[in-house]
Amino acid sequence: MFNNSITAAKGFLAAGVACGIKVSGKNDLGLIVCPTGAKAAAVFTTNKIVSAAVTISKHHIGSAKIFGVVVNSGNANACTGAQGIKNAITMCGALAGKIGTDPHNVLVASTGIIGHQLPVEKITDAMPATVRKLAATKQAGDNFLRAIMTTDTKMKCAVRRFEISGKKITIAGATKGSGMIAPNMATTLCFLTTDAAITKPLLAKALKSAIGNSLNKLTVDGHQSTNDTAVILASGLAGNRQITGKGTQYKKFANELVSLCDDLARQMALDAEGATRSFKVIVNGAATKDDAAKAARAVAGYDLVKCAIRGGDPNWGRIICAVGSAGVKLNERKLSCKIGDIAVFRNGRPAKFNAKKASAAITKSFHTITVDLGAGKYSDFCYGCDLSKEYVTINADYHT
Amino acid sequence: MFNNSITAAKGFLAAGVACGIKVSGKNDLGLIVCPTGAKAAAVFTTNKIVSAAVTISKHHIGSAKIFGVVVNSGNANACTGAQGIKNAITMCGALAGKIGTDPHNVLVASTGIIGHQLPVEKITDAMPATVRKLAATKQAGDNFLRAIMTTDTKMKCAVRRFEISGKKITIAGATKGSGMIAPNMATTLCFLTTDAAITKPLLAKALKSAIGNSLNKLTVDGHQSTNDTAVILASGLAGNRQITGKGTQYKKFANELVSLCDDLARQMALDAEGATRSFKVIVNGAATKDDAAKAARAVAGYDLVKCAIRGGDPNWGRIICAVGSAGVKLNERKLSCKIGDIAVFRNGRPAKFNAKKASAAITKSFHTITVDLGAGKYSDFCYGCDLSKEYVTINADYHT
Repeated sequence: MFNNSITAAKGFLAAGVACGIKVSGKNDLGLIVCPTGAKAAAVFTTNKIVSAAVTISKHHIGSAKIFGVVVNSGNANACTGAQGIKNAITMCGALAGKIGTDPHNVLVASTGIIGHQLPVEKITDAMPATVRKLAATKQAGDNFLRAIMTTDTKMKCAVRRFEISGKKITIAGATKGSGMIAPNMATTLCFLTTDAAITKPLLAKALKSAIGNSLNKLTVDGHQSTNDTAVILASGLAGNRQITGKGTQYKKFANELVSLCDDLARQMALDAEGATRSFKVIVNGAATKDDAAKAARAVAGYDLVKCAIRGGDPNWGRIICAVGSAGVKLNERKLSCKIGDIAVFRNGRPAKFNAKKASAAITKSFHTITVDLGAGKYSDFCYGCDLSKEYVTINADYHT
Repeated sequence: MFNNSITAAKGFLAAGVACGIKVSGKNDLGLIVCPTGAKAAAVFTTNKIVSAAVTISKHHIGSAKIFGVVVNSGNANACTGAQGIKNAITMCGALAGKIGTDPHNVLVASTGIIGHQLPVEKITDAMPATVRKLAATKQAGDNFLRAIMTTDTKMKCAVRRFEISGKKITIAGATKGSGMIAPNMATTLCFLTTDAAITKPLLAKALKSAIGNSLNKLTVDGHQSTNDTAVILASGLAGNRQITGKGTQYKKFANELVSLCDDLARQMALDAEGATRSFKVIVNGAATKDDAAKAARAVAGYDLVKCAIRGGDPNWGRIICAVGSAGVKLNERKLSCKIGDIAVFRNGRPAKFNAKKASAAITKSFHTITVDLGAGKYSDFCYGCDLSKEYVTINADYHT
């Protein structure tokens, strides 16, 4: 079977089990192991309140090589004080002990409810059996992915295979997240593996750029969680000569990585809590790059636009209202908007358009809204999703 | 009958009729007239796209005395170009002609759908009969209020009666709005009348301050409309010696005005689209006033918090997450949160609390969330409302 899981890249094993944190009995403990050690890079939430796992992983990411990642779902280990830090270290130690490395060479991530102490003994108790299940199969990769999911309804993973100087390279990614998603950080948990040989600084640079142009461009409800982490591990087993400069080979790697992350971001948009369709807001003609990003995010994050998309209503008034309210420079006489390729607003005035066609465009599972601010030459974009009654149900009926 | 409408202040007449803009046949044309002329002040939306009515009223507010206000609902007269401007001027002219003043001495406001030309002849045709209905009664004031409503389900008005130097003073207010409401402007349409004698600059100062501490502190869905306008008219007929300085008399007037506007803001929060309960987020211990305002708005505007309140869930994790995500300075070890008077989070850690009592507190029609950032001495607040399935229904099923 085609392996599109995180074990697709050479040198990585994975496992995922139910260790009893989730009352549902679903998978809640996941491992990624690179027996030869991997160069690693990560980006973390910019929320000022971070989980113990983020605190520890920020520390451990400095290690020259990372041999494993331990992840739990069902408990965020956030707002848990000194005991939480201790528990995060215990998680790293439990895996490190079994694979014969120092705890500093293990990363940790958690996701789930905030403010409850992690039942860490469930993790330590389950560790030996979980380590025995480590495998390089798609099934093992999928079990890992299931172990990081919370309110996700779909498994979100992707793979890119390409060549660098005649050597086959693979990058694979798995991500979770369907709420508490906003631009400006490494949105939710995202694990990437590659067999490319590349220096640690270039790996970090490629990751930062890829996340910045994909997951960080997704808004579901405008806030970042306390636990958001994106990690990439590079085993270097593909046999390519190590990428050490910013030339063609780096560019190819970086492009494939951003393409993969963009794929994951779109999968996340479509699996956002209660979402039935997703969209991309492209803003052109901005006076600055920052203005373009701000305007795109304002449209994608505006509940009234999200509701209109839910209702299949090509309501450009709400789009224009969001743009006008975003605090960006615009030329009212040039301001224009398209839904798909249908012009609905042109040079500051409503355009005549076929409402049925526009409604059909906005009802697709993925569509594009393009806004031209008429104020400059900069562009940026943001992904969003519709707002449904189900979002409210999911988040009003969920009880702490 | 106790008159709590905008005709409660001496010197004001009002009327409201259905002139045929709304297909529902409900009131859609409202007038306020001050036969002796009133000093006037206004604040307008900060959206970069403004309605023709806002453009014209910004111009007319410079007049020494305002004799009338003409308002329509059912059509926003926004994104309507030169024809829209012409129509806004025609509206002023139609009222001015009937009450014998210059069109520059009349203000105009519109609310409703964006991007459609106003059927202005319906307004001009109805003007003579509407002017004949002008009266100083509660019924006339209520008819005016009905004429400015759109998706509002409740009439939102309030009155304050007090004395300045032994003279009875009245301030009355009427407001509309239940969606597209955000801090940072004069949210929606708000009309205030008073019989106090006060200079135009002091009236403007009092209005700006009152709106800044009431309507501008309300967020329903985070965006301002293209038409938001708050106007105050002062007839000066109360017989008090004109307020010319910032002493006790001014302070008393300003305090009563902010109390009145706060009352209106709370009424709006509770009548927000789909809302069943409203709340006030108070942020203390901020390093700056701006930080306090930002954090309060982040909590009040966060869909996950709004859903939790809908569900009666004292989910402090979402509150803390919003605060951490707001980009403000905070001391994690001092960060604390109360729901009503129940401490749910103290010095960076969850507090033990009675979940049933906290759920009961959050389920009240109005409750308070207090956050202490532990980073300074500044405070600010924001009003918000819960997010319900009905919000989605209202805004997804509404079609342009």
